[in-house]
Amino acid sequence: MIPTPYLLFLGDAPDQLAAKVAIGIRDWRPENAVGQFRMEGCGADLGIVDLDLDEAWANGARTLVIGVANRGGVISAAWKEVLIAALRRGFDIASGLHNLLRDEADLVAVAAEEGRTLHDVRIPSVQYPIANGVKRSGKRCLAVGTDCSVGKMYTALAMDAVMRERGMKSTFRATGQTGILVTGGGVPLDAVIADFMAGAVEWLTPDNDADHWDLIEGQGSLFHASYSGVTMALVHGGQADALILCHEPTRTHMRGLPGYDLPTLEDLRDTALHLARRVNPDVQVVGISINTQHLDDQAAADYMAEVESRMGLPTVDPFRNDAGRLVDALAAL
Amino acid sequence: MIPTPYLLFLGDAPDQLAAKVAIGIRDWRPENAVGQFRMEGCGADLGIVDLDLDEAWANGARTLVIGVANRGGVISAAWKEVLIAALRRGFDIASGLHNLLRDEADLVAVAAEEGRTLHDVRIPSVQYPIANGVKRSGKRCLAVGTDCSVGKMYTALAMDAVMRERGMKSTFRATGQTGILVTGGGVPLDAVIADFMAGAVEWLTPDNDADHWDLIEGQGSLFHASYSGVTMALVHGGQADALILCHEPTRTHMRGLPGYDLPTLEDLRDTALHLARRVNPDVQVVGISINTQHLDDQAAADYMAEVESRMGLPTVDPFRNDAGRLVDALAAL
Repeated sequence: MIPTPYLLFLGDAPDQLAAKVAIGIRDWRPENAVGQFRMEGCGADLGIVDLDLDEAWANGARTLVIGVANRGGVISAAWKEVLIAALRRGFDIASGLHNLLRDEADLVAVAAEEGRTLHDVRIPSVQYPIANGVKRSGKRCLAVGTDCSVGKMYTALAMDAVMRERGMKSTFRATGQTGILVTGGGVPLDAVIADFMAGAVEWLTPDNDADHWDLIEGQGSLFHASYSGVTMALVHGGQADALILCHEPTRTHMRGLPGYDLPTLEDLRDTALHLARRVNPDVQVVGISINTQHLDDQAAADYMAEVESRMGLPTVDPFRNDAGRLVDALAAL
Repeated sequence: MIPTPYLLFLGDAPDQLAAKVAIGIRDWRPENAVGQFRMEGCGADLGIVDLDLDEAWANGARTLVIGVANRGGVISAAWKEVLIAALRRGFDIASGLHNLLRDEADLVAVAAEEGRTLHDVRIPSVQYPIANGVKRSGKRCLAVGTDCSVGKMYTALAMDAVMRERGMKSTFRATGQTGILVTGGGVPLDAVIADFMAGAVEWLTPDNDADHWDLIEGQGSLFHASYSGVTMALVHGGQADALILCHEPTRTHMRGLPGYDLPTLEDLRDTALHLARRVNPDVQVVGISINTQHLDDQAAADYMAEVESRMGLPTVDPFRNDAGRLVDALAAL
């Protein structure tokens, strides 16, 4: 686990888009976002208080999270100065960057001297077990998509937020770097060794109270030729009681795979259900999450009404509307 | 690629069973097996010529392959003496042991001095690409199983052998350590990072002549809760034109998963075909391979006749009979 709360480092981010990870943390775990650290020329602003390292420390922050994408894949000298000062001040550093903190000799040396930890959340830090398929207590919900990047993480986080508001027992279980930084822990599933993928998911979603829900972040798609194996491990390791189908209706082909059509929601439902029953015969598809960001209000409403009528399942856009009806469906199980 | 041919090192193997890997090499690639090297007290015998290091070198062997499981997971001092002498003589060393050659400081040092390579075939040595799903030329056959260890490798090797005899163009594509040692190359798929699994399979089975068949070694099972993600990557990365269903009829539960029944052959056929069509709409299930080792002659014949009649597909045990009818089915495509 990454020590929370965080100071969110925005560096010299050129614009708001580059600060996607920091925005996710601010939106989903505002209690983790003590303040932001912006350098000269930073074009991003989270709308939270600017703090220097001493102020952030005094306000309880214990990890500096790199909340931005860096330019050109290198950790610049300007960043380094801040990162080293943060380690000296007592902070851990967490990053989801492709180039790893642990590959920077100066950061490694200072962290060792100061007894701090560099958290590269793209890389597993645990020796996961082989999955055993044994039924676990508690309940689990998994978002599965017709494609990659259709809103699976957002859906799970939005459901988790509603469940917390309602006083239900729930935990968002991160399986990707952004989710791990948001919550402080999880499994970077796409970086796990093949044999241990399903075991990593079992490890992430252990026995729990009978009325507790794990909301498992989905990855990839069973229909995506590049990443379907990762999704399969989630379906079998996740042992879901409830599946949410996620879809983005304007996409013309699978992400990164020109020439590959998206599957229908019916095909996703039938395929995911058949595979998921292997580990939990009682699993049900309980709702549909549509990412309508590229549709206007009327088109979005019409599309969702059509899907809801056709599929006979509550259909919402958890960003445009909210995830309440999906949570109702979980509660009704 | 591992330099061939090999000297097969049996060490102090307690019995024939411990020499499974060496037996596989002798059976499937006898031209790779120049001789065997047995130490004092060795209980295994491949029935091929015993050679010392100098004799093996003179007969063309260029890699010493550790063809046995070792005891207690350590490379013993007695083994070390032979392995170091082999490196000094000019041999590479190849191993599928869990404990890696590269973790043995003395072997690493001598290999570096002599300019030799230590091949740990459990560990990928290539940075595989992300799968792109682009249609490749040539033909591919993939064995899929109702469970792990039902004879998928054996089936593919047996088909490859028949195709070579018949002068057809074929290549066995190894995806596990034994297959890699047998043929000298391949992908240790269960040790590949999740995101690159399907890409590794694409890399292993590149564009080829229109009438060339890759016989891809299957792994795991789409129905095995621990390893299904690996199988899924084979199904989508492999882009099979032909699927062979593999089954062991006396198994009472999935290997390593008490309480999990095996799927039916019908379920395997329908599930594998549906998923495989995603990357190749023309894929067909062309035959069934039954591992009848635990049935007597009559029971085996009866069982296979029943399956053949029920499924309408050529059904053989490639060990008990031969793989000719499966190859006929490929040739008829």
